[in-house]
Amino acid sequence: MVDNKGITAEKDEFSEWFTQIMLKADLADYTDVSGCIVFKPTAYEIWEKIKQETDKRFKKLGIKNCYFPLFIPERFLSKEKEHVKGFSPEVAWVTHAGDTKLNERLAVRPTSETIMYPSYSKWIRSYRDLPLKLNQWNNVVRWEFKHPVLFLRTREFLWNEGHTVYATKEQAEKEKDEIINVYKEICEDYLALPSLIGKKTEKEKFAGAEYTISMEFYMPNGKAIQGPDFHHDGQNFAKAYDIKFLDENEKPQCAYQNTFAITTRMLGVMFAIHSDKKGLILPPQIAPNQIVIIPIFKEESKKQILQEAKKIKQTLSNHNPILDEREDQTPGFKFNEYELKGIPIRIEIGPKDLEKKQAIVVRRDRLTKTPVKLNNLKTEIPKILEDIQKSLFKKAEKLLEDNIIEVKTIKQLQEAVKNKKIALIPLCNSRECEDNLKFKTEGAKVLNIDDKQPREKGNCVICSKPADYIARVGKSY
Amino acid sequence: MVDNKGITAEKDEFSEWFTQIMLKADLADYTDVSGCIVFKPTAYEIWEKIKQETDKRFKKLGIKNCYFPLFIPERFLSKEKEHVKGFSPEVAWVTHAGDTKLNERLAVRPTSETIMYPSYSKWIRSYRDLPLKLNQWNNVVRWEFKHPVLFLRTREFLWNEGHTVYATKEQAEKEKDEIINVYKEICEDYLALPSLIGKKTEKEKFAGAEYTISMEFYMPNGKAIQGPDFHHDGQNFAKAYDIKFLDENEKPQCAYQNTFAITTRMLGVMFAIHSDKKGLILPPQIAPNQIVIIPIFKEESKKQILQEAKKIKQTLSNHNPILDEREDQTPGFKFNEYELKGIPIRIEIGPKDLEKKQAIVVRRDRLTKTPVKLNNLKTEIPKILEDIQKSLFKKAEKLLEDNIIEVKTIKQLQEAVKNKKIALIPLCNSRECEDNLKFKTEGAKVLNIDDKQPREKGNCVICSKPADYIARVGKSY
Repeated sequence: MVDNKGITAEKDEFSEWFTQIMLKADLADYTDVSGCIVFKPTAYEIWEKIKQETDKRFKKLGIKNCYFPLFIPERFLSKEKEHVKGFSPEVAWVTHAGDTKLNERLAVRPTSETIMYPSYSKWIRSYRDLPLKLNQWNNVVRWEFKHPVLFLRTREFLWNEGHTVYATKEQAEKEKDEIINVYKEICEDYLALPSLIGKKTEKEKFAGAEYTISMEFYMPNGKAIQGPDFHHDGQNFAKAYDIKFLDENEKPQCAYQNTFAITTRMLGVMFAIHSDKKGLILPPQIAPNQIVIIPIFKEESKKQILQEAKKIKQTLSNHNPILDEREDQTPGFKFNEYELKGIPIRIEIGPKDLEKKQAIVVRRDRLTKTPVKLNNLKTEIPKILEDIQKSLFKKAEKLLEDNIIEVKTIKQLQEAVKNKKIALIPLCNSRECEDNLKFKTEGAKVLNIDDKQPREKGNCVICSKPADYIARVGKSY
Repeated sequence: MVDNKGITAEKDEFSEWFTQIMLKADLADYTDVSGCIVFKPTAYEIWEKIKQETDKRFKKLGIKNCYFPLFIPERFLSKEKEHVKGFSPEVAWVTHAGDTKLNERLAVRPTSETIMYPSYSKWIRSYRDLPLKLNQWNNVVRWEFKHPVLFLRTREFLWNEGHTVYATKEQAEKEKDEIINVYKEICEDYLALPSLIGKKTEKEKFAGAEYTISMEFYMPNGKAIQGPDFHHDGQNFAKAYDIKFLDENEKPQCAYQNTFAITTRMLGVMFAIHSDKKGLILPPQIAPNQIVIIPIFKEESKKQILQEAKKIKQTLSNHNPILDEREDQTPGFKFNEYELKGIPIRIEIGPKDLEKKQAIVVRRDRLTKTPVKLNNLKTEIPKILEDIQKSLFKKAEKLLEDNIIEVKTIKQLQEAVKNKKIALIPLCNSRECEDNLKFKTEGAKVLNIDDKQPREKGNCVICSKPADYIARVGKSY
């Protein structure tokens, strides 16, 4: 099913380039439901690995999986005012079952606070029931009217939604670093993606949260994109949904809550940041197959070559290698195909290599060819894979760092935004200045605010009063 | 969150007994969305294990996971006539997004044939694209108007749906045994559940299939219930959705298809069949925790007892043991709690046991107590767990076999149905006789037809003409 004609767009024609790779490398497809895509097997397998690694870490933190209904009765959705305001424009509504009109409309969950918390209210009675740490891996629907992009902006997507409840604010907030560290590990060690971690402004925080911590990524088209996030809800939902408990002194108390998520959007972020003109590049730690072995057949030595290729496959079985022994395709055709699909390492073995007791190892990230003695493959390949993983992270880190710029004036900010940079700017915390900033930059917004702040922040680039923080600002998805 | 007051209904008041166990053992809860339930962590963890074991076997068969949209445009749903007739009365319809009325209604998938096959039609071009073997683990919605029952009949449920495409009928049909064997292994070796495997009649087969193979289980209330199934669709969907390919001679051919599924209903079937008056009984192979260790504290030896209990936990760590060291609950309270929750083995250790260098091992299925020397726990426990697993299967097998009865006349059939038996009856394959059978038995139906048939089948109990087969008949969910 792979279109082997290769990518005909350059990386700087981002949208065309990205879409071509997603389709030609067989990662996704459009459907007739606008904004809803097919996650094809390779993409889905990568998502399963993200799930598995995240889930393992959640379990170590005592978080348990469960499953709540897809549907939310309309009256439940409306209980927390900010929340309903944030989500109702994007809700898909079920109004009929068969030919019967329902008495009450049902929202297809855009997120599950409003269906989970009525149950929480019922289940939580005493401090002994806390903390309650639940998580779901499911599908959600947000009927955005912006232009959909494969993986990056889809109306249905897959995610985890963690929903935890604590007796005290202090306990709840302690979870912030635990969760962000899990997501950071997944993004850095598996997806090879560095990020900017910080707090969202009041304007940009999650609808209903007290504050939101986000991880922001820098895309090759110069836009920032929000990845995993963590929301401390304080008592906002607990008050709206009546989540109370009797403390050790039998006194009624209102609980504190957090929510957190990582979504299938991260597949698109990773595909976009690492890939190149030839197609997909997958970090070895997340690649379903780390190696492809391509025997170079010559009539007289075919049998021996294939035998040796099979031996290599056996030797490197830890790396889930593909052995492509098709005879109706040329090696060149195969090279293109697996470069397009982003397999981290290609191993070629032909008659001359066999003579020299070697194989040719080609790294997908650099396309460099290195002969490696057959006896050394088992020890060398893991080192090369590790180096590819590190190199991809460093390259992405350089892309990010090279595109961050400190600015002091609105003019510099406008220039930075035009040059597709993430600007570090002094800003005050007034909503007016933040709105103004967006207007004056034709759509740039505050991505988030680093926890680490300099003592001297200078003056707000908008109103010139003393700044409250140095904010990260840029155009964003 | 466990209600420790125990089960107040006998197993023969099935509905009350079953619901009490599901709620009190903390497996599920109702929600305000009628027929949609919460899968609580223990139940969900068991489902994850079913998924994992099934998935591993699917992967060995070359089946890959993917994800298609939740929503199906109305015009897609209507393409296969039998299929739309079967499902449209139960479809939940999305009609609005935010305040905007959609141009076309979207069905929330009751099953995904009609959203997957338009993509299949696009992807499959040549015999080289076949077989295509995809699977999804997802949620589906069937808005049944029958009375919902926790796990057993819910409007939203979780399942796998396998959708495979082959070039020839022969290849497609070969998959039947492969898939049924996977489901059989899961049901027998993990859930400890025997089943009756056979072909559905024309009347009862899946809407759109050429034929359906089902696994039927016998519930403690005397009703049969359908579990996993496999459908051979022939070319029905391929014709409706234009799934064609060029064969090796470049001639266009229509493809052959199968679908197959196991659902969260199986959780309810397993919970119902094994459990007893004291609560849940879980087969060790599927239990999230196989053991609970309960130290019997006396003031003077508390420290030593706890130390020994921890050592036991360490020794048996393969079995994911719980050590309940709470001091504000009595041992008796804890015994009840874990009996209610169905942990396969309880290990008690008190001062007298410590003296004798032993622990008391209590099997949940029989509630028998056996002293086992501490030194022998590591070798004895796996044997006991294995025996519990086997005993549960045998007990369920006896329940099934004891409730199957051969009948030759309509009168005997009516008697058998009244006595909550599964009857083996001679039947002809006319639709009229099958309808008549249902009417005359006040609702019993043909469950399925064993592949193995006697040479002499006798005469149809309804029309007295020569029977086409011996059918399994009973009341069913």
